[in-house]
Amino acid sequence: MKHTLSVLVQNKPGVLARTAGLFSRRGYNIESLTVGVTENEEVSRMTIVVSGDDTVVEQVTKQLNKLIEVIKVTDLTKESYVRRELVLIKVTAEGINRAEIMQLVDVFRARIVDVAPKSLIIEVTGDQGKIDALNSTLKQFGIKEIARTGTLALGRGAKVIQSSKE
Amino acid sequence: MKHTLSVLVQNKPGVLARTAGLFSRRGYNIESLTVGVTENEEVSRMTIVVSGDDTVVEQVTKQLNKLIEVIKVTDLTKESYVRRELVLIKVTAEGINRAEIMQLVDVFRARIVDVAPKSLIIEVTGDQGKIDALNSTLKQFGIKEIARTGTLALGRGAKVIQSSKE
Repeated sequence: MKHTLSVLVQNKPGVLARTAGLFSRRGYNIESLTVGVTENEEVSRMTIVVSGDDTVVEQVTKQLNKLIEVIKVTDLTKESYVRRELVLIKVTAEGINRAEIMQLVDVFRARIVDVAPKSLIIEVTGDQGKIDALNSTLKQFGIKEIARTGTLALGRGAKVIQSSKE
Repeated sequence: MKHTLSVLVQNKPGVLARTAGLFSRRGYNIESLTVGVTENEEVSRMTIVVSGDDTVVEQVTKQLNKLIEVIKVTDLTKESYVRRELVLIKVTAEGINRAEIMQLVDVFRARIVDVAPKSLIIEVTGDQGKIDALNSTLKQFGIKEIARTGTLALGRGAKVIQSSKE
């Protein structure tokens, strides 16, 4: 099972390396990891998707909490949360295919962000299911390049993950 | 100056830790890093934003190329490229403020992805300038939580970054 962890960390050099190192040393498999500063510039939020059963996630959480720069670890999988990913797809688009691709872009509520004589770059956000569906639909035209951010997540509702160690 | 590096790596455990470790050991400052699989599932693409002059970036590139899992490093800053970030913002939204926030969401071509009695979650993509602008506009209402992916980038036009070491 996949678990989505929201991890608040101090925004200091080396935090990413230590966090990623913790996972790789212990053989935990990171599916994806994103990191960005929060509303407080001294604090960053990592969204980490890790596969494993509840025991594995419990161990990971304990290990993360031991890192001095980690402020708070929350397993979003236990609650209701919004999950999104951003993907840029460069697809071959010539002649008659171009109109068809543009229709697909509309259907998926995606956007065209670059137009070249023989290719387009499409920007799309959504959950994994939507992105996989668009990907497999575009494959027939020829996908030249893809860049993905990995999963980004926030808990639903007004609740806020406090920046304090429990 | 900020440089945006697009790095193709083998999709293997520990690659993220080794890459992040390389930066932190040498004191290079990573502004942001995103990683996701590509059109070839055995290959991942990292987008790394690093601040420093051309010499620093040249050194970083050399060091990255020494890692066995690194397939190709491209400094997108030298060419024309598309740069996007995905951000989720949970903002306090009560009474009369709610309509005003929804208008702002339209202006910024953002989307509302969660509605709670006292808050909304807004999804927005764009370059850093747009995201900073939306952020500072929403501050007056009270930002409860933010999650950001960091910069994602692809070179414009039909050119493809080849998966082969030069």
